Amino acid sequence: MKYEFSDNLNYMKSSAIRNLLKYIQQPGMISFGGGMPNPETFPIDKIMEITNDVLKNYGKSALQYGTTDGLKLLRDELVKFILKDENIKCGPENIFITTGSQQALYALSKIFANPGDKVILEAPTYVGMISSLNANAVDSESIGMDENGMIVENLEEKIKSMIKDGKKPRFIYTIPTFQNPAGYTMPLDRRKHLIEISKKYEIPVIEDNPYGDLRYSGSKVPTLKSLDDDVIYLGTFSKVMAPGLRTGYVIASEDVASKLNLLKQALDLAGDSFSQYIAYEYLKNGIIYEQIPKTIELYKRKRNVMLEALDEHVDNAEWSKPDGGMFLWLRIKKNVDSEKLLEKAIEKKVAYVPGSAFYHKNPELNTMRLNFTYADDDDIKDGIKRLGQVIAEA
Amino acid sequence: MKYEFSDNLNYMKSSAIRNLLKYIQQPGMISFGGGMPNPETFPIDKIMEITNDVLKNYGKSALQYGTTDGLKLLRDELVKFILKDENIKCGPENIFITTGSQQALYALSKIFANPGDKVILEAPTYVGMISSLNANAVDSESIGMDENGMIVENLEEKIKSMIKDGKKPRFIYTIPTFQNPAGYTMPLDRRKHLIEISKKYEIPVIEDNPYGDLRYSGSKVPTLKSLDDDVIYLGTFSKVMAPGLRTGYVIASEDVASKLNLLKQALDLAGDSFSQYIAYEYLKNGIIYEQIPKTIELYKRKRNVMLEALDEHVDNAEWSKPDGGMFLWLRIKKNVDSEKLLEKAIEKKVAYVPGSAFYHKNPELNTMRLNFTYADDDDIKDGIKRLGQVIAEA
Repeated sequence: MKYEFSDNLNYMKSSAIRNLLKYIQQPGMISFGGGMPNPETFPIDKIMEITNDVLKNYGKSALQYGTTDGLKLLRDELVKFILKDENIKCGPENIFITTGSQQALYALSKIFANPGDKVILEAPTYVGMISSLNANAVDSESIGMDENGMIVENLEEKIKSMIKDGKKPRFIYTIPTFQNPAGYTMPLDRRKHLIEISKKYEIPVIEDNPYGDLRYSGSKVPTLKSLDDDVIYLGTFSKVMAPGLRTGYVIASEDVASKLNLLKQALDLAGDSFSQYIAYEYLKNGIIYEQIPKTIELYKRKRNVMLEALDEHVDNAEWSKPDGGMFLWLRIKKNVDSEKLLEKAIEKKVAYVPGSAFYHKNPELNTMRLNFTYADDDDIKDGIKRLGQVIAEA
Repeated sequence: MKYEFSDNLNYMKSSAIRNLLKYIQQPGMISFGGGMPNPETFPIDKIMEITNDVLKNYGKSALQYGTTDGLKLLRDELVKFILKDENIKCGPENIFITTGSQQALYALSKIFANPGDKVILEAPTYVGMISSLNANAVDSESIGMDENGMIVENLEEKIKSMIKDGKKPRFIYTIPTFQNPAGYTMPLDRRKHLIEISKKYEIPVIEDNPYGDLRYSGSKVPTLKSLDDDVIYLGTFSKVMAPGLRTGYVIASEDVASKLNLLKQALDLAGDSFSQYIAYEYLKNGIIYEQIPKTIELYKRKRNVMLEALDEHVDNAEWSKPDGGMFLWLRIKKNVDSEKLLEKAIEKKVAYVPGSAFYHKNPELNTMRLNFTYADDDDIKDGIKRLGQVIAEA
């Protein structure tokens, strides 16, 4: 039978990053393309202890359907964790567990924006938000970034012009800390300014904070959510426990949580109960506080290795110097299309994600995202050397 | 801030079953309302062995992001299982892992139907399909059921009239075996007739088969998928392993699988890796073949207890006698609204799901769904006795 499909997926295209996977698996390839945590950071032994404990003490409920809003035990622990970790005050009724942060991005796009509506993004921004918007036929305008993140100074003018066009933005999406893909962090004054504008125009801010705990230099900056309770906050265990357990969370007002609940009943009914119990014990037993410093130590070293290799081997380009997270952003100082350049890089056995993947519209083609947390130290050095040659020959 | 939400959730209402939960937790309540497997069927010890094994042998990948289409090891095992279990021939490229079957229902609704399009359902049908259609603003027409499931004899006329109205159905959704909520099973001749019509009008059939392995009497009937490869088949580990692990699968052509892949990148990126490894070993080590007979033994006994109690205590009603699955369907022989009757039932400490929850439109109000697999045997007897009194007083 020749199936007739709907038009709902017409705006979607397969993620450039996912398409890279086939190259990455070639022998000898050094890849800075992935977005995966380094598996050395996975506390496998601790998780083995926890799983045995969970199955012994909570087996029947850990294997049963859970409630749509998520395990109450986990939400109670998150209330304590998020206060201590990010100075965010909330109750368990404000926490909504999602199947990874990706589900939160999809659900929030759908809850806040009708097809054809517009939102405001940073440019570049996280690919998962772009695919969520495309899946919901939501349009966007973007605010550029500098080394201090979103150029909030340009935000109000943008909002005014959008309102004038009858397209008031439905939300503003930002990753203010160690941004993916750019690695930039927004300082406090810009955060305050962003909130001021959000309140003035009554446009909700969605703060995505997957990397906040992974700081390697500089001082902590308060989360937007800790500055203003109207902010909708996204957290995840993917970078501080294990991404395979697909456990993220939204912190928001009860009316937002109840909309998420309604939609999640259709999306997947409830999250994985077992993984939520694992996350619960991971918090409760304080394993998370042992694990984060180990992860920071590993990633900080790798960041430094990459920054040094870039200084040594790469000319005609500039790049961000992230204080944390997993990525840095490189801009070639010439009119070079990094998507086309990737073919040459693949020949030289080095891979990255072309910057164009991180723009909803109007990509800057001379950019690329480099992940510094996955490859071996020696491979980072070799890979950057190869990349320097590829750029030099461009 | 007063948030402005989109119109996307306007068709959705919170599931009547989920809303029942608060009553079910009252002390002394006997509930036939849930749809949860009996936790006595969870092979906790075996799963403990498996999790230790998985973490020891595959820890780094079991905790890492997986691919969007699902763990290849699991899909390879499913190819063997589904051939042996349901005589369905396919390759791993035809299997797409979903976050429970619920995600498949949501994704298939979105992939096949534009907002305002129509599909064909059985009446009554599974609530999860109703919420998926509502979340995607998809409309429906229904075909009634008798003790042999969907009255396929009425299908062609329905399709013709829908085509005449310019609303050719985008798919036909059926649970042909031990239907939820009705407990009916479609015999072979109707299955063949359904497929014949599907091919004649080129309308895909979605076969949802969560209960197929749970047969307590009668002989196995071939799945629609084994009769016709154009059928899109939904399976799940929820009823034969554990629902908390949220692992379902779609078996379909590669073009359907590639659409699912594209959409799932936005929905949740990938399923839970750990749960997929558990399901993989559960199949590979043959635990599933040990577990199904145990589950059948327990559920068969409970079905018999409920059917005997109904014969003894309930007048002025008729009910299905399911050969398998988890539910039976009761119709009061008077013009009684079972939603209103539920208040009286709750007073008498017995709960069920009003039949209206299982109709997308035009509910039959004098119906209810009874789950027979969850309550203790004595509670089943007492609960049905109470229900008989409630119905008698109606």
